[in-house]
Amino acid sequence: MIIIFRKDATEEEIQGTLRKIELLGYKPHLSRGTVKTICGVTGDDRAIAQSEFDQLPGVESVLRVLKPYKLASREFHPDPTRIPVGGVEIGPGSFVVIAGPCAVESEEQVESIAALLGRLGLKLIRGGAFKPRSSPYSFQGLGEEGLQILHGAARRHGLTVVTEVLSEHDVELVARYAGLFQVGARNMQNFALLKALGETRTPVLLKRSMMGTIEELLLSAEYIMKGGNPHVILCERGIRTFETETRNTLDIGAVPAAKRLSHLPILVDPSHAMGDWHYVPSASLAAIAAGADGILIEIHPNPAEAKSDGKQSLNFTRFEELLARLRDLAPHLGVAVH
Amino acid sequence: MIIIFRKDATEEEIQGTLRKIELLGYKPHLSRGTVKTICGVTGDDRAIAQSEFDQLPGVESVLRVLKPYKLASREFHPDPTRIPVGGVEIGPGSFVVIAGPCAVESEEQVESIAALLGRLGLKLIRGGAFKPRSSPYSFQGLGEEGLQILHGAARRHGLTVVTEVLSEHDVELVARYAGLFQVGARNMQNFALLKALGETRTPVLLKRSMMGTIEELLLSAEYIMKGGNPHVILCERGIRTFETETRNTLDIGAVPAAKRLSHLPILVDPSHAMGDWHYVPSASLAAIAAGADGILIEIHPNPAEAKSDGKQSLNFTRFEELLARLRDLAPHLGVAVH
Amino acid sequence: MIIIFRKDATEEEIQGTLRKIELLGYKPHLSRGTVKTICGVTGDDRAIAQSEFDQLPGVESVLRVLKPYKLASREFHPDPTRIPVGGVEIGPGSFVVIAGPCAVESEEQVESIAALLGRLGLKLIRGGAFKPRSSPYSFQGLGEEGLQILHGAARRHGLTVVTEVLSEHDVELVARYAGLFQVGARNMQNFALLKALGETRTPVLLKRSMMGTIEELLLSAEYIMKGGNPHVILCERGIRTFETETRNTLDIGAVPAAKRLSHLPILVDPSHAMGDWHYVPSASLAAIAAGADGILIEIHPNPAEAKSDGKQSLNFTRFEELLARLRDLAPHLGVAVH
Amino acid sequence: MIIIFRKDATEEEIQGTLRKIELLGYKPHLSRGTVKTICGVTGDDRAIAQSEFDQLPGVESVLRVLKPYKLASREFHPDPTRIPVGGVEIGPGSFVVIAGPCAVESEEQVESIAALLGRLGLKLIRGGAFKPRSSPYSFQGLGEEGLQILHGAARRHGLTVVTEVLSEHDVELVARYAGLFQVGARNMQNFALLKALGETRTPVLLKRSMMGTIEELLLSAEYIMKGGNPHVILCERGIRTFETETRNTLDIGAVPAAKRLSHLPILVDPSHAMGDWHYVPSASLAAIAAGADGILIEIHPNPAEAKSDGKQSLNFTRFEELLARLRDLAPHLGVAVH
Repeated sequence: MIIIFRKDATEEEIQGTLRKIELLGYKPHLSRGTVKTICGVTGDDRAIAQSEFDQLPGVESVLRVLKPYKLASREFHPDPTRIPVGGVEIGPGSFVVIAGPCAVESEEQVESIAALLGRLGLKLIRGGAFKPRSSPYSFQGLGEEGLQILHGAARRHGLTVVTEVLSEHDVELVARYAGLFQVGARNMQNFALLKALGETRTPVLLKRSMMGTIEELLLSAEYIMKGGNPHVILCERGIRTFETETRNTLDIGAVPAAKRLSHLPILVDPSHAMGDWHYVPSASLAAIAAGADGILIEIHPNPAEAKSDGKQSLNFTRFEELLARLRDLAPHLGVAVH
Repeated sequence: MIIIFRKDATEEEIQGTLRKIELLGYKPHLSRGTVKTICGVTGDDRAIAQSEFDQLPGVESVLRVLKPYKLASREFHPDPTRIPVGGVEIGPGSFVVIAGPCAVESEEQVESIAALLGRLGLKLIRGGAFKPRSSPYSFQGLGEEGLQILHGAARRHGLTVVTEVLSEHDVELVARYAGLFQVGARNMQNFALLKALGETRTPVLLKRSMMGTIEELLLSAEYIMKGGNPHVILCERGIRTFETETRNTLDIGAVPAAKRLSHLPILVDPSHAMGDWHYVPSASLAAIAAGADGILIEIHPNPAEAKSDGKQSLNFTRFEELLARLRDLAPHLGVAVH
Repeated sequence: MIIIFRKDATEEEIQGTLRKIELLGYKPHLSRGTVKTICGVTGDDRAIAQSEFDQLPGVESVLRVLKPYKLASREFHPDPTRIPVGGVEIGPGSFVVIAGPCAVESEEQVESIAALLGRLGLKLIRGGAFKPRSSPYSFQGLGEEGLQILHGAARRHGLTVVTEVLSEHDVELVARYAGLFQVGARNMQNFALLKALGETRTPVLLKRSMMGTIEELLLSAEYIMKGGNPHVILCERGIRTFETETRNTLDIGAVPAAKRLSHLPILVDPSHAMGDWHYVPSASLAAIAAGADGILIEIHPNPAEAKSDGKQSLNFTRFEELLARLRDLAPHLGVAVH
Repeated sequence: MIIIFRKDATEEEIQGTLRKIELLGYKPHLSRGTVKTICGVTGDDRAIAQSEFDQLPGVESVLRVLKPYKLASREFHPDPTRIPVGGVEIGPGSFVVIAGPCAVESEEQVESIAALLGRLGLKLIRGGAFKPRSSPYSFQGLGEEGLQILHGAARRHGLTVVTEVLSEHDVELVARYAGLFQVGARNMQNFALLKALGETRTPVLLKRSMMGTIEELLLSAEYIMKGGNPHVILCERGIRTFETETRNTLDIGAVPAAKRLSHLPILVDPSHAMGDWHYVPSASLAAIAAGADGILIEIHPNPAEAKSDGKQSLNFTRFEELLARLRDLAPHLGVAVH
């Protein structure tokens, strides 16, 4: 932490600040410049709020030097982490393709998708049973029945279920069916949920919120990890900007940025990022090329009849074509597609 | 809903779409233009997802004509709503000032604030007992003890408590102490929480999320209202943009926009919007002038020692000055300050 | 400037950085912490690019302490500036209302507006002769003929002309007719134009761009001032965000922020910020209450027939009502409306 | 164009609107619904401003059906365009790498870069002689001397120059040295400049502005094309969002979106998008994978000593490594790297 004093700060204000730093158990390092006087604070000051200082009389501003997260940070854990889920190691060397419908609609729908994934040699199926919807008039998901359908089809085809948990209430219920919890974008800062997931040992796929910074995403990962669950996988799914041609703006730069700041794996969700199936293959290829550890992608046997997100779902033919292209590029990018 | 066909849509594709509309119980109105063919759908189509159509072969895009919310809409409820809380009618004719600390820290802190509010003739006190914090290392609030402190001080000074509820778990607990629930920005789309609040009859102050559009804010209000609780008060608290000089960007235009689209009252939170007490008086005066129904504002007996948000809290002197200015302007804006 | 070294920076890298600082004529102040080593640079380092350092081996990041602008800064010029235009002193104590059509369309249109402004005791008329339009198919303005129409009507009614200059080419031409140049949002960083305006002595109304930070706005003012023209008036006209209910998002917090960072006056353009006349009165009242030095507002004798921006223009009756409300509030805010 | 009437629109208001449509030479198609009455307008209505209608009494809103651009549109020109520059056909089948320094600094600097590019078999060199800088205190470029340096080195190594033109003043001067004009992000809506470029026949690389929508980018291309110059190449260079870890946010989805909406080629500028060389290789690989027609990339013999943008420039070794990776992927993406 570095404290910058106002040009007109009095000696008394400066000394008062130094005392407060020492009181909190840290060591101040004052430099008096011809233009500004500044004070470095050394020691691991993650636990002190910046606001303890930026309000003091004489203080102009306070700059953080240390990243505010620790367990999620690459600085403290230089090697990349691999997280095993359903027989796949998510992390360096592999590119995982987690496909499935936006929402579980029926036994037939899920069965046809699970059969396809099994045939294509994939290992993870995604699908929503509890759906967070902006409008109360939209389809809200099948609930536990949806989980049962997913789980049944997954078992028949040797797959593991990835599904969203919306509330700390449902953690136990969802854990009975899922091998990987999904935290949706709207819940990235649902701290009650994050704490509940920190108490389990099931891996968590944590989606970045539409207006969450990469730092906030890592702080939310830190909540889960601090609770005792180190198995966190990040997911970039598009952020909200002024552009409306795509549903969200895929922040592809978040992939190398997250990899540099953190040791955790990061996936990309090209379906929510684009919101239109026409753009999903390009976004998926960009993800593998940029170094993402996989994609979370929506497919549907008949997108025109999907109860939600039909517009952004690939049909089977287009999905197979995309998978073939990913598999063609993968060896040139040092990964294997699972 | 208006469906616009692609230039190259075949007759069969157009007829298929018309059949689907009729099947769903609506009436299609086709116009064939020299450039584009379009089809209007009449009837109350709020319940049909746009995605039922925009994926159909031959369809270029689908435009909504009706607002997606109904109970919150001004079109269906032209008169503005007044919501009684703690002896004040929030809505036209009054400008409510809900003041208090960001977080409840101690008996003394809250007592001094409650005494001030009582002496100034205000009726509502705010304060956080459960704090949603980006970092797991930041102060998380006193929990129920905080609620008890708030409630005790409020009773002694004839005030009503406004406080945040973070999870559907806590609704019952918080209801024992609060006269007005606060839903924080990060929970605007925590649908489990919104549904739980819809089952109570306690008024709800619903804050707009940093990334929420006005339409999404109204849809979240609709969740609560559809559940049976009509007492929703909106709150603009700043949205996230590229500007960093203020903590968030106060979208002052959201005030007249919400009033035109909805009959619900709307407050402004100048403290979170600005993030710096220097700018809070200007933002508060802008709020009353723009037609807001009140403000939710952070004050602290000694902001330099606040455990959170000290930088954006007014001290007592500055708060009294601001209140005097609001009371001076109020009659010229047709409202009384409570 | 504060340089933060990487945890693994070698002694050689640190010494190399110190030498570079001294070579540039500044004085380094090193503090070695237990976690990080940092180095303060003292002296007026505005002229050194941050990038001289943030690329050096061993350097993690570089933080600026001084604001990058000087002539526009309040730190170096504590008293607010008043800029005389057409008999009005724009700055503290007055609230200037600059009204007129988006585009000059005809003699009759401008005459009727000028007559109204004269009758209402206002002093400045705005109107566009050169129009920057997103589409090449939209009306581009009447050019010099428009300037003549504006100037003629202004003279007949004792008004001064405020009009946009689009290119350094036109500075001389526009100066013949205007008492206040307007730099539009799209030209805030047209540095060729800013430099040309720095060579005149005619006041400049500098609009913030849709994507410009407050700091960039002040840097653009600095371009004009550094060229020798100190008469710069800032203008907040709405920034671009994800919200679409209003055309732009009025950043009302930019008003107190600009006043704290700079001594220059700042106006608000409620018409472009809102994009819909329904919201313009609220935004105008918010502007005066937040401490703006005036507004730049679009009016039209018959908005339904306007060639551009009709949707956001007030008709005469609504404008007169708004002016009456501004004049009613003004004495309570310590200003007179001109 | 589709006009939606207010629920309470009178018959007279509706008839008035129909008359206005016919007066303008278009054909109205009225559908009276049980909830809303709407009116389609057929004919090529690009030239009518939406605002002619959305201000009319009784009108609730006006929706556009046709894209506002035509020459740049894929609808009217289905085949993708190839633009020959310096012996390379920019467009389908090739992936062009335009490399060079942010700013021309010296003969030696440019010579070393040009020699590298020649040796690597590339054909185009970029470099800035006129630099648009936010601060008037930053390095502004060498001007014409810079162009001469660029041109000399380019000739010696068989390269063609790509360089920015900042003002319509300089079009003729820059054309003497450049084979491809660059319009920078800040000038995307400098319409005076766009019109001047429309009068030349030299190809133009048009960069998207930091807050420009894809539609606005295509409208700016339309300005140049309508002027008579069909040789426009688009460039996505990152947009401004709330995220600060990268300098801008690379909107990788803009690549497939622009390709679907337009027949023009589109490049990516990974250097400005990322602002940090660590992230530039990932962004470049994402660009080729997403289907971009090339990249515009900053390299420097010694980034630590660059006068501008050193932080985002690749050194020669890293650039060669990246080029090798692009060439390795290219055949799998159906392109050849030039």
